[in-house]
Amino acid sequence: MLPAQERSVMLMKKIAKGTHRNVNYVSRLFQPQNVVPKDGIVKREDSLSKSQKLMHDLGVIRQASPGAFHLLPLGERSLQKLIRIVDDEMCKINAQKLLLPLLTSGELWKSTGRWEDIGEELFTLKDRHDRELVLSPTHEEAVTELMASIPQLSYRQLPLLLYQVTSKFRDEMRPRFGLLRGREFIMKDLYTFDTSAEAASETYKAVSKAYDNIFRRIGIQYFKVSAVTGVMGGSVSHEYHFPAAVGEAKLLICESCGYGTSLESCVPSECPECGHGFLKCCPGIEVGHTFLLGTKYSVPLKARFTTVEGKSDFLQMGSYGLGMTRILAAGVEVLSLPDEMRWPIALAPFTVCIVPPKVRKEVRKVQWLT
Amino acid sequence: MLPAQERSVMLMKKIAKGTHRNVNYVSRLFQPQNVVPKDGIVKREDSLSKSQKLMHDLGVIRQASPGAFHLLPLGERSLQKLIRIVDDEMCKINAQKLLLPLLTSGELWKSTGRWEDIGEELFTLKDRHDRELVLSPTHEEAVTELMASIPQLSYRQLPLLLYQVTSKFRDEMRPRFGLLRGREFIMKDLYTFDTSAEAASETYKAVSKAYDNIFRRIGIQYFKVSAVTGVMGGSVSHEYHFPAAVGEAKLLICESCGYGTSLESCVPSECPECGHGFLKCCPGIEVGHTFLLGTKYSVPLKARFTTVEGKSDFLQMGSYGLGMTRILAAGVEVLSLPDEMRWPIALAPFTVCIVPPKVRKEVRKVQWLT
Repeated sequence: MLPAQERSVMLMKKIAKGTHRNVNYVSRLFQPQNVVPKDGIVKREDSLSKSQKLMHDLGVIRQASPGAFHLLPLGERSLQKLIRIVDDEMCKINAQKLLLPLLTSGELWKSTGRWEDIGEELFTLKDRHDRELVLSPTHEEAVTELMASIPQLSYRQLPLLLYQVTSKFRDEMRPRFGLLRGREFIMKDLYTFDTSAEAASETYKAVSKAYDNIFRRIGIQYFKVSAVTGVMGGSVSHEYHFPAAVGEAKLLICESCGYGTSLESCVPSECPECGHGFLKCCPGIEVGHTFLLGTKYSVPLKARFTTVEGKSDFLQMGSYGLGMTRILAAGVEVLSLPDEMRWPIALAPFTVCIVPPKVRKEVRKVQWLT
Repeated sequence: MLPAQERSVMLMKKIAKGTHRNVNYVSRLFQPQNVVPKDGIVKREDSLSKSQKLMHDLGVIRQASPGAFHLLPLGERSLQKLIRIVDDEMCKINAQKLLLPLLTSGELWKSTGRWEDIGEELFTLKDRHDRELVLSPTHEEAVTELMASIPQLSYRQLPLLLYQVTSKFRDEMRPRFGLLRGREFIMKDLYTFDTSAEAASETYKAVSKAYDNIFRRIGIQYFKVSAVTGVMGGSVSHEYHFPAAVGEAKLLICESCGYGTSLESCVPSECPECGHGFLKCCPGIEVGHTFLLGTKYSVPLKARFTTVEGKSDFLQMGSYGLGMTRILAAGVEVLSLPDEMRWPIALAPFTVCIVPPKVRKEVRKVQWLT
């Protein structure tokens, strides 16, 4: 029996005994649905993705403004299930959870050059004292400054793995496809600090394994491909993709050995990895991205530690992102039929619906569980 | 035995059997402490509060920029404990959790007049298309617009209680006292929707009871006082305060019956409630605020529902806030000695520390639990 089923049986017993407190009646759930009359025609932009239509019509999300969506109770519940999986796998690799402010100083972004590099996609503002602030799309600068502020960081405290799950912001030119490409979204971002490039590579392997575990638990087929480092910088980078027609990334995947890349242009060719398979072009939704950063951020922000020999050296860093709200939508996108929403079971807001028998014509309340 | 102790004993048994997976070694914890050498003198602003000094020196928080703080692992863990208490009490009154975007449109704030009313404390920005956005300090406008967007909301779906726990922003002129008055902070905000003023009053009572439960579980003495509605609007309002010298609110509390108010100027007088006690002036840290809003937001934003008679009427609203990060700091502020941090046990990041015996001179690792 699946753990989810076991939990459900346990809960049903509790309900029968009257000892289960938190009951989710279907009739009380805030799930505003978009009911289309039979044979009714809905005029809608063709640019909506399948997951966006379904999640909106079935009351999981609702658009607040271009690229920004309300996560309604079903969506919020699904997000919490994903967060629990991530927290669990992060704990296994000794990653510690923290919470960095979303507003960061403009100076910080100028010191690493990303104020200009990211450019118009950066949401910026000024406070009442006319100081420039950034509504952060990612936190390499902030977390590196935090590490630089710690007096006498020792090699004994490393490796250090710090992560958070928070709102992120990107002023997209054309936000689209609901949660798949928004201007405001939830990301899990992990930053790692090591004493040497070799140690950072070991940490990279450990985190990659944790990412594999997370995606296995989500249960949707995914591709891990080598990728460009882009504006993030660094030397090594991999992306995680769910294959889907609506995906904006073009991947080359070997049909034989599973090797994948987003580095080359999408022209089918022989696999450079196994030598006998052929690379097939395939669209993907990017749901995760990992980077070995080296000292790209620790040098300009002066984030150092004390070595075994008592000398001072720059921290070797890694950065690892998971698009949390994007994973929710991408999962629905991959699994659903055009008119039937399907969730990965691990992320489904509820997995059991109890419909009690009628007692003397009286219809009893229907409940959602787990 | 306390539940926390029971859990600890259970965990210790698991550790002894080797079946407990997630171990928090004290030596691995990211807790950068500010070690002051004996007889060392630290020059610091006098304006720091006790909780701010202690939480910084003991590695619970770290300042990122004026009014914005990193919650380090101990702080994040404490916040999660508070969120669990709040979620549990919200569930008991059938409040449903959701997640609204932090960025809201400037138009929305202009339509209720609060763009001008809140003025300089509102963080505003423009996107790449020159549209005005607000980094929301509260979500009355956003949630009311959400309700207005729902086709044919029926009286049968009411009362509806919706809440979230998210970052909030206020461009304070003088942020101070660490988490007590920041520019970015975590709030729990609940919005309620009813069919009539009477029904909204009943909901107000139910939420007030839930707030009493939350504060009882936190375990710190608190004052509930009648308050002005201010920029929020509405008719009835109460504040929840922790009494503390550093508190910026001046309260009048009856020594006899416990009646309290923040409405009058702080001049001791006879209690208007019981008639025989005297009102004593006392400083407080505001940690919660509740409002009966009437139709202040539903009228300008056209949030209506269909009545039993099939007519259309405006929703009767309530708004209820809890300053989550402020509660963490206020709890430490109230309980701590100048040089010794003390947490409310319900919010302590850890409640048990296991120090195993030495085995043949080998010091074994010290662990935090629960």
